[in-house]
Amino acid sequence: MLMTVEEAQSRILSRIPPPSPQELTPLMSALGRVLAAPVYSGEDIPGFTNSSMDGYAVHSADVAHACGDSPAALTVRGTIAAGHPVSQPLSRGEAYKIMTGAPLPPAADAVIQVEWTAPGEHGQVLALSAVRPGQNVRLAGQDMQKGQRVLEPGLVISPPIVGILATLGIEQVPVFPRPRVAIVSTGDELVSAGEPLRPGQIRNSNSYALAAAVQAAGADPWVFPPVADVKTAIAERFAEAASADIVLSSGGVSVGDFDWVKEVLQEQGTLDLWRVNMKPGKPVAFGSIHGRPFFGLPGNPVSALVTFELFVRPMIREMMQDRLWARPTVSLPLHEDFSEVQDRRHYVRSRLVEDAGRLWVSPYSRQDSAVQTSWIGAEALMVVPPDTGPYARGEHLPVMILRSGF
Amino acid sequence: MLMTVEEAQSRILSRIPPPSPQELTPLMSALGRVLAAPVYSGEDIPGFTNSSMDGYAVHSADVAHACGDSPAALTVRGTIAAGHPVSQPLSRGEAYKIMTGAPLPPAADAVIQVEWTAPGEHGQVLALSAVRPGQNVRLAGQDMQKGQRVLEPGLVISPPIVGILATLGIEQVPVFPRPRVAIVSTGDELVSAGEPLRPGQIRNSNSYALAAAVQAAGADPWVFPPVADVKTAIAERFAEAASADIVLSSGGVSVGDFDWVKEVLQEQGTLDLWRVNMKPGKPVAFGSIHGRPFFGLPGNPVSALVTFELFVRPMIREMMQDRLWARPTVSLPLHEDFSEVQDRRHYVRSRLVEDAGRLWVSPYSRQDSAVQTSWIGAEALMVVPPDTGPYARGEHLPVMILRSGF
Repeated sequence: MLMTVEEAQSRILSRIPPPSPQELTPLMSALGRVLAAPVYSGEDIPGFTNSSMDGYAVHSADVAHACGDSPAALTVRGTIAAGHPVSQPLSRGEAYKIMTGAPLPPAADAVIQVEWTAPGEHGQVLALSAVRPGQNVRLAGQDMQKGQRVLEPGLVISPPIVGILATLGIEQVPVFPRPRVAIVSTGDELVSAGEPLRPGQIRNSNSYALAAAVQAAGADPWVFPPVADVKTAIAERFAEAASADIVLSSGGVSVGDFDWVKEVLQEQGTLDLWRVNMKPGKPVAFGSIHGRPFFGLPGNPVSALVTFELFVRPMIREMMQDRLWARPTVSLPLHEDFSEVQDRRHYVRSRLVEDAGRLWVSPYSRQDSAVQTSWIGAEALMVVPPDTGPYARGEHLPVMILRSGF
Repeated sequence: MLMTVEEAQSRILSRIPPPSPQELTPLMSALGRVLAAPVYSGEDIPGFTNSSMDGYAVHSADVAHACGDSPAALTVRGTIAAGHPVSQPLSRGEAYKIMTGAPLPPAADAVIQVEWTAPGEHGQVLALSAVRPGQNVRLAGQDMQKGQRVLEPGLVISPPIVGILATLGIEQVPVFPRPRVAIVSTGDELVSAGEPLRPGQIRNSNSYALAAAVQAAGADPWVFPPVADVKTAIAERFAEAASADIVLSSGGVSVGDFDWVKEVLQEQGTLDLWRVNMKPGKPVAFGSIHGRPFFGLPGNPVSALVTFELFVRPMIREMMQDRLWARPTVSLPLHEDFSEVQDRRHYVRSRLVEDAGRLWVSPYSRQDSAVQTSWIGAEALMVVPPDTGPYARGEHLPVMILRSGF
């Protein structure tokens, strides 16, 4: 009986290690980190009632009947620039010229924008329109109130959040540490970049691709050189890797004679071999090593990245208390027929295409999981339910959008 | 007459400076960079025909009629592990035990997976099923051929692309330099984080938020301290900032008396003030300073980030030759009624909500562009055409998805 992807995810997420103690990071380095503590406002924001327009601060009652044919003439007391408050209250029949963001003078209750005024005689200004009380005015505290809990832990720090933190004067931001993720690839056939290839050997690509996926998920990769298919070597490497927060291995968990990973894991921790109802990447191993979560990903490069996306990334994000780790999944029409029918849920590498004013999903034609080049430009995984299809152009399927992240 | 967003974008993109010369970056630092040169394969990938399963390498003709009731018995010549090729051809009636990724022995043309075999007598193996020629075999060069142009310049380097580069043995990756973006905020009212607030002053948040947005767009921010509303100070600061690739200023381009930015720009370069048919962010200034592209963004924090997203980010991405900078825009149903009607195209800060198995767009209720807190958790901008609405729950509107990027 195959396990569903959702069941595998929930089993994995039930074994998340407790969060690490928070650390402080300078505001300028906080982008993309996850907030670790609530943030309160120490003051009202804005801190003072101010103008949202360039114009004239007025008593709205003075211009209540003003219009182009019958303007209201007001005496201009002076000019208030941003950063330069005045303390004298505005008298009836008077106006201050005022700039955007400048503090409203005491007693004024509205701003008439400059476009609705004209110069009058004797230094007066003519209001050509009425304004409501409060019009073009931002009240002190309308965005945040002193003492208000503004930001919650678990929030991913985006540029607007950086702006809010700066507005609150927070220079050191409490964030969750990035989990450290050890990456161990096993296999006699693996050769590191820069070394010559001998017959039967291939270059180690999974360590690099997984390191990049770990980075993209917001964690710190810790890459070990590939280890040969020798039990003692694997045991030693894994013992060292277990000082990380999460241990990933790729390769070595299928049914081959030379797969020592399982044996080592059973001695140093625990290991479940799961057959998950998905393609690519059916065999996924999950367990623990010296108490750390352990993932045994398929050796196949495409399967390794898809299983990383579905199982490892959620754990990394949840360890940092980010609850919104799920990719946006939307229903999109197929741009071409898709005829492949699989007996497992199929995560189909796809592009997004804009055509005739709509967004479409365009699956790559070569879905063989050994074909790395079908990832070029892939921005999405189309999710095809098992034993369904073929699908025709225009039919809708759910699509996980990976663009700018994976 | 207001300019459309698309017209403003195309005017901006018609003035992109020529690309900077490429630079080399180590593969482990290449994530998110943009490839600057085509990448060719120096060899066939895979480099040798190999098994995609753990099983037995056979002559498919030897097992053409095998089934559970009438298995084919084959003599096992030995075992081939990944990384350990054999040179002797497989004779008829024989099999090699073979591991996933191991090179196929000469003359074998298929692999029967281990699950479809049983141990026989005298060290033989019983094939319980027929296999087609080529079954469970990956042919040399099936992914990439020697000399093939595999990757194109302009490609954003994602984890799968890192994997392909590693497979090709590329340790130093040619990428476009990150543009350097100078950020100058102007205003007497601005106070840097850590300094005390005096009456009428506000903290400088735009410099920080824009720096984060520049980083998220893949460029390098260069932040200047805020400059007072004094013409000579502004002129000096801008002259210095013009050694960057792009210059951003925030504040100082509206119609206020104290807006020296326009004047300085007209002396040191060129400046067009555009009224763009959008909300927030109608007034946008675009020009050049000492030959560098200049953007004058609104001082309002929300407007500054929305105009950055629509105008500055495209230029940054295009300068790096990334042609796929547009955010995925999908049509989503409203999760709640949305009653605000605007006379300009409205970019509405919104969340994505999963409910009843569908993805919905949920606009924040406070769209006042002075309300920074309406960005908290915002993952999308819903695009409402001018003079339309109100919209009811369930109606569809286009939604730009910002999650994991903005």
